[in-house]
Amino acid sequence: MARLVMKFGGTSVGDIDRIRNVAAHVQREVDAGHQVAVVVSAMSGETNRLVGLTRDVARLHDAREYDVVVSAGEQVSVGLLAMALQDVGVAARSWLGWQIAMKTSDVHGAARIEDVDVAAMEEQFGEGRVAVIAGFQGISGNGRITTLGRGGSDTSAVAVAAALKADRCDIYTDVDGVYTTDPRMVPAAQKMNRISYEEMLEMASLGAKVLQTRSVELAMSHNVRLQVRSSFDAPDDAKFKNMAPDDIVGTLICDEDEIMEHEIVSGIAYARNEAKLTLLGVPDRPGIAAQIFGPLADAAVNVDMIVQNMSPDGKTTDVTFTVSQDELERAVKVVEAEKVGLDYSQLQSAPEMAKISIVGVGMRSHAGVAQKMFKVLADQGINIHVISTSEIKISVLIDADYVEPAVRALHAAYGLDEEVAG
Amino acid sequence: MARLVMKFGGTSVGDIDRIRNVAAHVQREVDAGHQVAVVVSAMSGETNRLVGLTRDVARLHDAREYDVVVSAGEQVSVGLLAMALQDVGVAARSWLGWQIAMKTSDVHGAARIEDVDVAAMEEQFGEGRVAVIAGFQGISGNGRITTLGRGGSDTSAVAVAAALKADRCDIYTDVDGVYTTDPRMVPAAQKMNRISYEEMLEMASLGAKVLQTRSVELAMSHNVRLQVRSSFDAPDDAKFKNMAPDDIVGTLICDEDEIMEHEIVSGIAYARNEAKLTLLGVPDRPGIAAQIFGPLADAAVNVDMIVQNMSPDGKTTDVTFTVSQDELERAVKVVEAEKVGLDYSQLQSAPEMAKISIVGVGMRSHAGVAQKMFKVLADQGINIHVISTSEIKISVLIDADYVEPAVRALHAAYGLDEEVAG
Repeated sequence: MARLVMKFGGTSVGDIDRIRNVAAHVQREVDAGHQVAVVVSAMSGETNRLVGLTRDVARLHDAREYDVVVSAGEQVSVGLLAMALQDVGVAARSWLGWQIAMKTSDVHGAARIEDVDVAAMEEQFGEGRVAVIAGFQGISGNGRITTLGRGGSDTSAVAVAAALKADRCDIYTDVDGVYTTDPRMVPAAQKMNRISYEEMLEMASLGAKVLQTRSVELAMSHNVRLQVRSSFDAPDDAKFKNMAPDDIVGTLICDEDEIMEHEIVSGIAYARNEAKLTLLGVPDRPGIAAQIFGPLADAAVNVDMIVQNMSPDGKTTDVTFTVSQDELERAVKVVEAEKVGLDYSQLQSAPEMAKISIVGVGMRSHAGVAQKMFKVLADQGINIHVISTSEIKISVLIDADYVEPAVRALHAAYGLDEEVAG
Repeated sequence: MARLVMKFGGTSVGDIDRIRNVAAHVQREVDAGHQVAVVVSAMSGETNRLVGLTRDVARLHDAREYDVVVSAGEQVSVGLLAMALQDVGVAARSWLGWQIAMKTSDVHGAARIEDVDVAAMEEQFGEGRVAVIAGFQGISGNGRITTLGRGGSDTSAVAVAAALKADRCDIYTDVDGVYTTDPRMVPAAQKMNRISYEEMLEMASLGAKVLQTRSVELAMSHNVRLQVRSSFDAPDDAKFKNMAPDDIVGTLICDEDEIMEHEIVSGIAYARNEAKLTLLGVPDRPGIAAQIFGPLADAAVNVDMIVQNMSPDGKTTDVTFTVSQDELERAVKVVEAEKVGLDYSQLQSAPEMAKISIVGVGMRSHAGVAQKMFKVLADQGINIHVISTSEIKISVLIDADYVEPAVRALHAAYGLDEEVAG
């Protein structure tokens, strides 16, 4: 017997038939003898409808009242799912954020979970009752309803799994796992069986948008084993027969110690919509970086990669950084407004860039990983504009036109292409 | 300065424009210096939509989960109204049933209010903040959401008014007050300025469906002054200018001591859809009434008027009673099934009957009120089938065809017709 948290998003509970399908997935796990808590989002479209009403009623919201309105969506779906479970003979009851209680900060609309009190829920497990939990919502210290921000249900599920010390938290989504790269771009991409939290964080923040970054961080810090799996699987699919509690059908995101042998490179992520700015001839003096990036931060421009080179004369330097394309115009304005103080000679910008990253905990113990990347791209005639590295990731900035050939060549070079029996 | 509870139904908050209109009504009272709590229903159509979802998901509901789903409707409308109030500069916050707390029994779907804890709300009044309260919902002793049953928001409003010791509870509805009889039938019908709780209860249960009977009972037992008034009034109507706190624009339902001079008859109510059953030749022995009406009660047939006459032979009796037309068939079946035990000679039924009632606390101290009613009907050639009286009401059963002439003639005879200046 295992203790499982299952999470279903808005599409999975989008209408009554789909809610029944979710109930069948839950029933399968209950029949297998597991203790189950289910976390669900609002029915798809419902949160947008409610947000629309709040926008129509007042341009400036009181975020506390916004949370009251928007959290009604999950309230409806937990009640309906509890009924659907009872209808197929599975004992269940719904839990709202304030009932659990899912205690959060009082930053309404983007609250952070502070504590999950699962005493009452755990008692009901003892009685064999499935807990159907409203995702996305919590309660603040002064008893008001809070919401965690868009996509917060993943985070709710991980928090509940941590509090319940669950054996696994299964995130049912519209893909059947995490792939070595985007399978729409590289048909030879393979589904990973396991990936470490650190790798997933690098993959997620780099554009492989399967899970909220925040939920992976929370899973890592509480050591919650997360499985990404498909909500489109038929609940009674033959592949679920006679499964051991530890069998993985999707991709397991877990501690790297749980992964026996690491690939040097686990996956290749990419992000289009990057833009590059370069300040030429900036005086090379202490504090110059703060002088550049302080005003950008104040203007809420998200700066990603940063590199700084010496100029031949030794007195000035060139600073290059990247922002997302939709923030480029704003970034240029900010930097131009600081022209006098910064005293640079020229500002160059390139709007059509892309970032390619190779990710893998294995590269820590292997030399030559970066060198191989540079050679593969050079062989393809692709120019590298910026390089940025971390312990388990190497990212390069290239012209957006070359994303596909670059990703394909790297995917093959690092041995990630699916082996085709022949 | 007065303390007011204002209640708006689903139609009044049916869309964003109407919610703004409600906010303007509230603003008017706040500007007049009053402390205000507003009780609102779900946006019209929303409760039906949610009830439909629960029906679609499972034929047999768990009433506790039904309440979770259905109470989401009021959660949305309180949040939106609080925002609309803030948008026009009125400080406001929403209160859900569990936040107040509105403590109820655990009869889900039809809970009874047990206690209203208004300590937190009262504190906010001190800070000049309007309390926007979700009607229809409460919380049970074990922390589950309850609902009061359809139309329960009137009852919520009265309960809040009682707990807050409000000076008045204004029920905004689609009519501008309580009339001496149905103005669609009798154009000369007049809006009453005041009516006692007892009279209103007789009027309401007899078909003048302006307020839930339950809310009037609660108002009477806690001495809450209730005003029925129109939600279609423009919030800035000139008639609201310079009003004293005690001025009434609709109809005030209050203790009879507050009504200076009573009409002998305050109003005339009617109910169509009545049916009559008569058992002829029933043996006249003790316990025969219980033997007739016991099985009817067991079959959930609602019996209204009952009369019993002696037969000339002194050994048998005739028993006549009324039920609503849609229950007639069921009632006949029940009585026929008891034929052997009851030993009556014949069962007669008449499906097309109507009940006319004259109501007024003044009739307690006036003789001849009933006699006048019988004479007016006799003058119209209308036959009376059954008579039933209470302290402040006289009801007669007549053929349904004669409802209109009967009500018109009685309305004129008791001096209720509007005086037309001429």
